[in-house]
Amino acid sequence: MENIKEITEALLKFRNERDWEKFHNPKDLALAINIESGELLEEFLWKKHEEANKENIKEELADVFAYAFLLAEKYNFNVKQIVLEKIKKNGEKYPISKAKGVATKYNKL
Amino acid sequence: MENIKEITEALLKFRNERDWEKFHNPKDLALAINIESGELLEEFLWKKHEEANKENIKEELADVFAYAFLLAEKYNFNVKQIVLEKIKKNGEKYPISKAKGVATKYNKL
Amino acid sequence: MENIKEITEALLKFRNERDWEKFHNPKDLALAINIESGELLEEFLWKKHEEANKENIKEELADVFAYAFLLAEKYNFNVKQIVLEKIKKNGEKYPISKAKGVATKYNKL
Amino acid sequence: MENIKEITEALLKFRNERDWEKFHNPKDLALAINIESGELLEEFLWKKHEEANKENIKEELADVFAYAFLLAEKYNFNVKQIVLEKIKKNGEKYPISKAKGVATKYNKL
Repeated sequence: MENIKEITEALLKFRNERDWEKFHNPKDLALAINIESGELLEEFLWKKHEEANKENIKEELADVFAYAFLLAEKYNFNVKQIVLEKIKKNGEKYPISKAKGVATKYNKL
Repeated sequence: MENIKEITEALLKFRNERDWEKFHNPKDLALAINIESGELLEEFLWKKHEEANKENIKEELADVFAYAFLLAEKYNFNVKQIVLEKIKKNGEKYPISKAKGVATKYNKL
Repeated sequence: MENIKEITEALLKFRNERDWEKFHNPKDLALAINIESGELLEEFLWKKHEEANKENIKEELADVFAYAFLLAEKYNFNVKQIVLEKIKKNGEKYPISKAKGVATKYNKL
Repeated sequence: MENIKEITEALLKFRNERDWEKFHNPKDLALAINIESGELLEEFLWKKHEEANKENIKEELADVFAYAFLLAEKYNFNVKQIVLEKIKKNGEKYPISKAKGVATKYNKL
């Protein structure tokens, strides 16, 4: 089985055992992604990245992924497909010839 | 090839073609995850989730995934492994007997 | 003394007593605002707003304000002035005739 | 008139002229604070803070303040009072003797 499918099934099993589907509407899942992203960010606050705690980052990033996979599942998005499509679209917004080596946002390129 | 590996390789190719690795330190990747999570959240602002635009959500969620996979790669995290480990840990914080059907945070259970 | 000035002075006193100015660069203050905003958001997660805890919201919102005032101080922004200027600018993006009663983003009006 | 009261009245006037009160429930205001905080954060992405654009920061921070003041108004919070109370509370979590010069979180002090 593909690994994203395995992860998603484990998340759904965890959710269903706790009868939490009723809480997991797409809007609140988007809130959850933001909240977990904020906790991830906190691991870097007032610090250089070399000073951040890798174990904590691992757990907070896992939480971000968990809710992101659950939101993808809600909409039946194929994660690989949507990321590859976005890369393609970004390739048009950020052509190599203009974007190489600069962090400028596409609307300023 | 496993799909997470495929996604990650496509993201690294995109990044390297643009010589962006120098910008992608872990702290700024964590910022990027937050920024993209905020854009995802904006798709639900002032709305019921049924009114949100699925195409836009797809693109914003893809951006969240993209930076999350890039951060995981920075630390050599195996995404499947870290999410499954977190599910296990959360299972201890939220035992089914206490957590079933309630959205209470673990430290209040 | 104006109340924003009073709040800012109390925040600076607290910071300076702890010798924390060295941590409070503008970028990390922007991180702090995001982190506190995420904690505020968590008070509403999986809930209708009527179910949220007002005391907790008060504290999390206070944290958002604290870092926002500290960032404003870093740049010598006059908070009243920058908000009034932004209202004026938004008035042009959202003319009453077009924006009345609709939540449409300005670039779609 | 105190400046926070002036700012809040200008925000309410702007909102009411556009008949937007119906959108501004506390939960969505908390979302808006997060979204605007994310836009503020974007001004610092891939950059040292010295490279960030002060004019853009001014506008994004103004947006954070705008929604923060509107949320405070929803709950009839007195902004000066809640921030001063939080400073007092934080003074207990971060006593000068322990917190001076270190960025350690209170639960690790």
